[in-house]
Amino acid sequence: MGCSAYCFHCLFDHGTPVILVVSSKKVGFIFRLLQLCIIVYVAVYVCWYKRAYQERDSVISSVSTKVKGNILTNSSALGTHVWDTSEYVIPPQGENSFFVLTNAIVTQGQTQGSCPEIPSEFTNCQSDSDCKEGLKEIRGNGVQTGKCVQYSETIKTCEVLSWCPLENDTVIPKPALLSAAEDFTVLIKNNIQYPKFKFRKRNILRHINSTYLKNCTFNHKTDPHCPVFRLGDIVTESGEDFSIMALKGGIIGIFIDWSCDLDFNERFCVPKYSFRRLDNKNPENNVAPGYNFRYAKYYMNNENTETRTLIKAFGIRFDVIVFGMAGKFNIVPTIVNVGAALALLNLMKVICDWFMLNCLSDSEYYSKHKFKHLKPKDESETFSFTDQSSYGTP
Amino acid sequence: MGCSAYCFHCLFDHGTPVILVVSSKKVGFIFRLLQLCIIVYVAVYVCWYKRAYQERDSVISSVSTKVKGNILTNSSALGTHVWDTSEYVIPPQGENSFFVLTNAIVTQGQTQGSCPEIPSEFTNCQSDSDCKEGLKEIRGNGVQTGKCVQYSETIKTCEVLSWCPLENDTVIPKPALLSAAEDFTVLIKNNIQYPKFKFRKRNILRHINSTYLKNCTFNHKTDPHCPVFRLGDIVTESGEDFSIMALKGGIIGIFIDWSCDLDFNERFCVPKYSFRRLDNKNPENNVAPGYNFRYAKYYMNNENTETRTLIKAFGIRFDVIVFGMAGKFNIVPTIVNVGAALALLNLMKVICDWFMLNCLSDSEYYSKHKFKHLKPKDESETFSFTDQSSYGTP
Amino acid sequence: MGCSAYCFHCLFDHGTPVILVVSSKKVGFIFRLLQLCIIVYVAVYVCWYKRAYQERDSVISSVSTKVKGNILTNSSALGTHVWDTSEYVIPPQGENSFFVLTNAIVTQGQTQGSCPEIPSEFTNCQSDSDCKEGLKEIRGNGVQTGKCVQYSETIKTCEVLSWCPLENDTVIPKPALLSAAEDFTVLIKNNIQYPKFKFRKRNILRHINSTYLKNCTFNHKTDPHCPVFRLGDIVTESGEDFSIMALKGGIIGIFIDWSCDLDFNERFCVPKYSFRRLDNKNPENNVAPGYNFRYAKYYMNNENTETRTLIKAFGIRFDVIVFGMAGKFNIVPTIVNVGAALALLNLMKVICDWFMLNCLSDSEYYSKHKFKHLKPKDESETFSFTDQSSYGTP
Repeated sequence: MGCSAYCFHCLFDHGTPVILVVSSKKVGFIFRLLQLCIIVYVAVYVCWYKRAYQERDSVISSVSTKVKGNILTNSSALGTHVWDTSEYVIPPQGENSFFVLTNAIVTQGQTQGSCPEIPSEFTNCQSDSDCKEGLKEIRGNGVQTGKCVQYSETIKTCEVLSWCPLENDTVIPKPALLSAAEDFTVLIKNNIQYPKFKFRKRNILRHINSTYLKNCTFNHKTDPHCPVFRLGDIVTESGEDFSIMALKGGIIGIFIDWSCDLDFNERFCVPKYSFRRLDNKNPENNVAPGYNFRYAKYYMNNENTETRTLIKAFGIRFDVIVFGMAGKFNIVPTIVNVGAALALLNLMKVICDWFMLNCLSDSEYYSKHKFKHLKPKDESETFSFTDQSSYGTP
Repeated sequence: MGCSAYCFHCLFDHGTPVILVVSSKKVGFIFRLLQLCIIVYVAVYVCWYKRAYQERDSVISSVSTKVKGNILTNSSALGTHVWDTSEYVIPPQGENSFFVLTNAIVTQGQTQGSCPEIPSEFTNCQSDSDCKEGLKEIRGNGVQTGKCVQYSETIKTCEVLSWCPLENDTVIPKPALLSAAEDFTVLIKNNIQYPKFKFRKRNILRHINSTYLKNCTFNHKTDPHCPVFRLGDIVTESGEDFSIMALKGGIIGIFIDWSCDLDFNERFCVPKYSFRRLDNKNPENNVAPGYNFRYAKYYMNNENTETRTLIKAFGIRFDVIVFGMAGKFNIVPTIVNVGAALALLNLMKVICDWFMLNCLSDSEYYSKHKFKHLKPKDESETFSFTDQSSYGTP
Repeated sequence: MGCSAYCFHCLFDHGTPVILVVSSKKVGFIFRLLQLCIIVYVAVYVCWYKRAYQERDSVISSVSTKVKGNILTNSSALGTHVWDTSEYVIPPQGENSFFVLTNAIVTQGQTQGSCPEIPSEFTNCQSDSDCKEGLKEIRGNGVQTGKCVQYSETIKTCEVLSWCPLENDTVIPKPALLSAAEDFTVLIKNNIQYPKFKFRKRNILRHINSTYLKNCTFNHKTDPHCPVFRLGDIVTESGEDFSIMALKGGIIGIFIDWSCDLDFNERFCVPKYSFRRLDNKNPENNVAPGYNFRYAKYYMNNENTETRTLIKAFGIRFDVIVFGMAGKFNIVPTIVNVGAALALLNLMKVICDWFMLNCLSDSEYYSKHKFKHLKPKDESETFSFTDQSSYGTP
């Protein structure tokens, strides 16, 4: 055979395995059943439920928030005071979270100086020898001077250098100073994109008009696409009581789920909101429960000394957590899954063969026809098949 | 056959299917064509374009920014005023975003008290009966006292308890107070890592020296790796007009794409910058367009009353959004894709077989030789093959 | 054959390839070896090491931090001053990062006005002609008035409109003002979830009680699950010297790795902490080394003029970076990988066949029995097999 003829054969000869067709209802039934299972699994679970034929991408997001509402409070420390957004939202603008002050311990007129510590097991003293100059007790409020001074008529505590008078945070205002904050509303604007699919969307959907936006409040059933949320609703939906949570603060997650099937029209790709408390309210394995931090407003008093109002702010931090995966048909994962299914179908054949060759009464008979044992050439040239007898002459 | 001999056979006998080689140009051509398609698909699309042989990891990033520039403004509210970074970047340091003030409504000397509301359809009144004591109108600026008072000579509005005098934000300064902010520059330092590959890099590339960094400005063509950006260029590249955007503010995304093929040298892994406006400037399905927030500077006045300067800050928030996926050769996805391709090649064989057995004129002839129908043993022991006739005697 | 009988055959006939069993130790050995490799690869690498049978999900996280500690400093600018959390943590609360001030240049009593620039190559002048009215030198501190004025007895610089007196940041306090900040502690609370698996956990593990939390400090060996970290330890573990880093500041990443195998009990899913410096301390390809920003405290002085204290704050920004992937058994990736392994096993068969048909001395003999060359029907009806001679008559 010439070289070109050989190549021609290589290219255009088609090799197909010789198939032994066995008419056994048992084997046939098992094979079809297994085949059906695979096909149902691929169709229902892989394609329909898991959408494994899709390529995936994670969401990239940008969030801006705006809180609205005013509150009138009447406390001994502050007198009558109206709180507006610039006072109770700290910092005035955040990235993915915003903090709403709900309770506060206000200490006015602090200046640098020395004063007796707040009584506690670490600060109480009998005499100067109980205090150590320069000690920065981690649970204390300043640096000890080494003196033991009168805190009240009965109690003596170590004197500290600090912003004086010291804040006494042992008693938290109850009910919370701004417990009415549950009526505040927050507008959340969220802009997402799936860079792999060049897909962009906003949580303010295209069919929503400005008039609706100005008057709506989010509600899972009636207004699921309104981006204005009442704080009280958020807290209630996350299973908490606003008035209790307002006392010591906490962290609430506002989850925006952008999971989308981009094989469908993009208008089906809408955000789903859910709410959950993120911090631990269980007091047993907890430390510093709730959520609070201290900040100060600095002044110069009339003697030109730096004075400050220290505020221990308790409140709810709302973390806007945007997540989601988008899927879109792509040939690579499709072929990977089709390939896997085909390999499985092949495996089913092997299983059926095994069943046929081992578990049926005719096994040996089938085996005889399926396998052609070829002896090594040198052993027996003429009797190449051990089963040559099955090729009966007529 | 002894047990050990049997095991020996099990282990070292090699089973290979008996192949019927068909010399049909049609079938051969179709098979080779299909095979070629698969191979081209795998080589070009899967390997080259999608790099499906790679394991992937998402980027972890840390960003710091520093804005530079000074502006001299001359407004009726503030007089001549020089703005420096600590005044117009709020908060002074952010994580992944920074805000540059471009316009402001400044209300000086606010103290707690009562004053007439800003006129609007919700606050105008004729008499005290139109106002309700304690009402916290969500679009209002305070808590109503229940009185209807003179706002101007012609207009009466409800009186509110609030920080007085109230801010009147109906007129926005035009042109924007800090419209010259487009000349500011921002240095963006970005540090990324792909934890799976233990790969770390900075956006300040190794070959760049300090002298260049101190004088360069980012430009897609001439300086694509300079980390110093002119704000005006960012806004222009995102398709906006700085002077218009400065009026009401907005959000601009600075996208840093770290998509990398780590099979190549790491010096090819460089950040790609792009810019896009993230907020909606379309007024139709929008609410609170632009980007603004209020913050206040608190003072004690001479009578020791808390006074504040309220600033409604309009400006551009720049969100530095770092994204990207790195890929590196890994045996698992490689084998998954090779396996899928092999399964597909097998499928092609099945398709060719089907074509050969159904669509050719010689189908029956091929079929006769491909399939050996084995009857159940009990039915016909001697005539086991239905196609035994094809095994002709010489 | 009737139609129903045909369908019956289609459904329940089982086709199994006719296998030629070759008793060649060489081929058998090679085949078993290849098979073993594949199986070992799948078992060890794919299943055990890569856990490719698992579906994966990325972590979603929420972080809150609380720094504690007080410091007494004695500087010429501030006198004796006690710093507490609300002063040195800026902003008072962050999302995923917190900044601790370690060094500061304080410029007190700034008011809007004009004053000579800080001497530098860009601001020094001989006469008014060297200065340009309105020039906003990007490396300068204000807007030039066009005058050249005396800065000191020997140096003349351009006059600028700015907050005066200007800050002189050429000399950084050394040692750092708050170098003792290494004794501060930070409590990090981290709440994570894997939404795909509905799995949630906190970094304060369930078995830890409040008493332990109040007294522990994180240590890789003794207290790996304590969420309270000493700042000095963090910096040391990231390979830096706190006293040096405190001078000019920097960024340190606190990495929390939540990689988990959720097929095991959830109590094995615990956070792993690590620390690393993120900014570049190499001065060669760097600009603005360290980490600093400016902020100001605003006052009204006795003449009712706005005055401010400008603080150039150097410090360490700690970025809490939470990452991780959870895996859980899922049938889809399992089947994809099993399919790929099966396809590979098939490939091994093909390789062995090729070896058998090309590299052995008996190749031609094997080939003769493996392939049955079927000629096109019209060419030779009676001599359908080219190898018909091998079917010897007895």
